[in-house]
Amino acid sequence: MLISFEGIDGCGKSTQIKLLKAYFRDKGVKFSVFREPGGTEISEKIRNLLLHETDDMDPTTELLLFSAARSQLVAEEIIPRLKKGEIVILDRFYDSTTAYQGYGRKSAKLSHIETLNKLATHNTEPEITFYLRIDPKEAAKRTQRGIKDRMEKAGEDFFREVYSGYDMLSRLERFEVIDATKSPEEIHQKIIQRLNKVLN
Amino acid sequence: MLISFEGIDGCGKSTQIKLLKAYFRDKGVKFSVFREPGGTEISEKIRNLLLHETDDMDPTTELLLFSAARSQLVAEEIIPRLKKGEIVILDRFYDSTTAYQGYGRKSAKLSHIETLNKLATHNTEPEITFYLRIDPKEAAKRTQRGIKDRMEKAGEDFFREVYSGYDMLSRLERFEVIDATKSPEEIHQKIIQRLNKVLN
Repeated sequence: MLISFEGIDGCGKSTQIKLLKAYFRDKGVKFSVFREPGGTEISEKIRNLLLHETDDMDPTTELLLFSAARSQLVAEEIIPRLKKGEIVILDRFYDSTTAYQGYGRKSAKLSHIETLNKLATHNTEPEITFYLRIDPKEAAKRTQRGIKDRMEKAGEDFFREVYSGYDMLSRLERFEVIDATKSPEEIHQKIIQRLNKVLN
Repeated sequence: MLISFEGIDGCGKSTQIKLLKAYFRDKGVKFSVFREPGGTEISEKIRNLLLHETDDMDPTTELLLFSAARSQLVAEEIIPRLKKGEIVILDRFYDSTTAYQGYGRKSAKLSHIETLNKLATHNTEPEITFYLRIDPKEAAKRTQRGIKDRMEKAGEDFFREVYSGYDMLSRLERFEVIDATKSPEEIHQKIIQRLNKVLN
């Protein structure tokens, strides 16, 4: 089973993934967590390229490099684990590309991004996507200084677009929209409930 | 003006590009030649990744990395030169991706490769594509040992598919199909004639 977590910066994804890991560990369930770009030798090399990115890097180049790192991670790590019946948790997956690069930055047409996502994921879709929904203004209040700086640099309009992108994606059946203003424990319980429904 | 050269290994592209460069130099025409992947700092870094490719690299990852290198070359070098009215010669361009990865290797659906090519080229198309057409068997006879080894490794069936891919592409209006079994001088003259028709 493939589970992805999505949401704008400051929505509480990391906290929820931490709680879920502890839950699975307690239950003795075999799982892995991946965060892009990275997770394989080739993907890490691409990550390095992206991290040392200069202003010279064209947004389409960035989109393609990110997709290349994803393709390798999916082919080398995710698909084999899913085949063995393991649980794979992803801290962001291709919906982030649609929301951030498609709706936010508008690096490419949405239909082109959709094709790119299909290629990069080898048509692998999550069974469930937990979308931690929170208003960008609200999220900005909770985030650490570092994230806050990045968010301010990108501008509020940008995060409004990303937010509306996620709202469009929420219509997909695999999306489980969660009110991210609730307490971490409440959110965790909701996630567990939904997962148990699928696992049973 | 953007001019690309296409054809299977051993078709004589390099010889023709050499002759064309000498011709333009004599005429005092400003031109540049690029060969993928490479041509910018970022593209060269991607080239390194591709060259040190291990068997672990997934074919889709390779396709996306190649496209990322192309995107950067087009954005950083090709488009600015074309805007200044310079001539740009390409030793292979996205038609090679269609022929080799799409028809030959079948790394992805043709419609997906088409979208990828549009993204990677920022919708930049050559004015003329010189396709040096030669039967794979005939080409194999002329090639150096190194290319011959690679061709044998890939198999004759592979090159048949690439060849038929190019034949499909030849229907495009920008394609100028040239019989590559003719002498280099004859071919060069044909190329010059066609170019002069466009330049005048």
